[in-house]
Amino acid sequence: MGRLISLIENESPQLREVMTALMPFTGHAHVVGITGSPGVGKSTSTNALVGELRRRGRRVGVLAVDPSSPFSGGALLGDRIRMQDHVLDPEVFIRSMASRGHLGGLSWSTPQALRVLDAAGFDVILIETVGVGQSEIEIASTADTTVILLAPGMGDGIQAAKAGILEIGDVYVINKADRPGADKVRRDLRTMLSLGERAQDAWKPPIIKASATKGEGIAEVVDGLEEHLAFLRSTETLGRRRRTRARDEIEAIALAAMRRRWGAVGARAELDELADRIVAGSLDPYTAADSLLDG
Amino acid sequence: MGRLISLIENESPQLREVMTALMPFTGHAHVVGITGSPGVGKSTSTNALVGELRRRGRRVGVLAVDPSSPFSGGALLGDRIRMQDHVLDPEVFIRSMASRGHLGGLSWSTPQALRVLDAAGFDVILIETVGVGQSEIEIASTADTTVILLAPGMGDGIQAAKAGILEIGDVYVINKADRPGADKVRRDLRTMLSLGERAQDAWKPPIIKASATKGEGIAEVVDGLEEHLAFLRSTETLGRRRRTRARDEIEAIALAAMRRRWGAVGARAELDELADRIVAGSLDPYTAADSLLDG
Repeated sequence: MGRLISLIENESPQLREVMTALMPFTGHAHVVGITGSPGVGKSTSTNALVGELRRRGRRVGVLAVDPSSPFSGGALLGDRIRMQDHVLDPEVFIRSMASRGHLGGLSWSTPQALRVLDAAGFDVILIETVGVGQSEIEIASTADTTVILLAPGMGDGIQAAKAGILEIGDVYVINKADRPGADKVRRDLRTMLSLGERAQDAWKPPIIKASATKGEGIAEVVDGLEEHLAFLRSTETLGRRRRTRARDEIEAIALAAMRRRWGAVGARAELDELADRIVAGSLDPYTAADSLLDG
Repeated sequence: MGRLISLIENESPQLREVMTALMPFTGHAHVVGITGSPGVGKSTSTNALVGELRRRGRRVGVLAVDPSSPFSGGALLGDRIRMQDHVLDPEVFIRSMASRGHLGGLSWSTPQALRVLDAAGFDVILIETVGVGQSEIEIASTADTTVILLAPGMGDGIQAAKAGILEIGDVYVINKADRPGADKVRRDLRTMLSLGERAQDAWKPPIIKASATKGEGIAEVVDGLEEHLAFLRSTETLGRRRRTRARDEIEAIALAAMRRRWGAVGARAELDELADRIVAGSLDPYTAADSLLDG
């Protein structure tokens, strides 16, 4: 599995063959995205969730995706160490992934890595990523269920409103709930969630207080994940989410293929010439883009 | 100008016409990217730089780009307030921009906003963005000169190594240099910069200590910007950077055009059907992408 995921990170041409072979074995896993600002305790929470899922007999895959590092694939070593409770368990697979190769981001690499773990028969796949920039939105469009982690004392109220997490969370967890301010974070979040418009039969995201280091509230979080999956199944939302994910994936692969064409020797020379004319002010970028697409 | 930039934010179909008309008037402005982690004092520094550039008689445009907010265009209000020293100066134009519309990111919107300010005759355009995720890399590929802001007491040594800022800075500024630890930040940065490989005749990025609130070191930063521009001119690097920027822009516009085609009604139905077959496990995403591109 590790080697297959390396093929993805290296954008290997063999991927097409691999994915074709895996397709018939996919569709079983519950994909859970876990995101939150730096410092809310993502790795510790993921570690605790893996423990609880194992107690319930589930096989668990973990993908820790680092969207901030376009340069190195060796990121998140510290996080892997924090998850070491489970490294010797053969029913748990943990992998860090650099997500920013040439082909662009989570939307290209993550669905393919998911497919590898899904085909391998994992019941639950946790994708953990830090909530900065665009990554949390991308994770939400990739996962069946999105868990938003918050913690007291981090100005998360404002942060929540700003980053748009109110629109993407299926389960909210106030981690470090033994610290002062946890109730206020919960109250603020509840108020903000109640302000949004929701259909009557829509899912109502639970807000769960937890302490990942003490193991408190973790069973409730896993209950929340399972209830959400049952809801998705009962309302056909699961199929709709997975269709959206597949559509994004097709587009990402097609866009990457376009980029590769434009990077080929002949096209590259044409693109350089178009760019020179833009720099000289003799051509506008829209006409240049038309030439590229028709060329 | 504000209205033209709104056209960009709204992805208006009129843009093509506008850009065509502006092209002959472009190529004059020195484009300076300013980035750094939250809390290093970006707005205050930008404000101080505008002041110094004005003292030197330059007309200055400022684009404050918020890459973290895909949902609202009203971001960065606080930052605009911090720059209010210059809002009444007719030779200064300040604009906040949301960068994450449907068409994807800095690479689509920023070059076009730059072109508007460039054509309007500004001598220097400062693009300020927070250094999270991919945004600082994008800003560096858009600017002629990239300024990386650091500050003591923020673990910037590690941060620098992690985010790859060592490869993108043309001028480094240790802001808040009156605080303890500024010399250590400079020393660490110098060591890290010296470890990278550089051609003998390459630009050697200066590391300047400054205090934006006190106005200290700001003239030296502007000197650094001007020296870097002279270097770019003398070595043909300027043309090369601008060609790269134009190439990225053409690609971004072409990719957006592809996405728009796929979003059109007929194509959308085909894409949905391909996605359903992927979810069912009967088709692989590569073959689906081929169909999309050939369709």
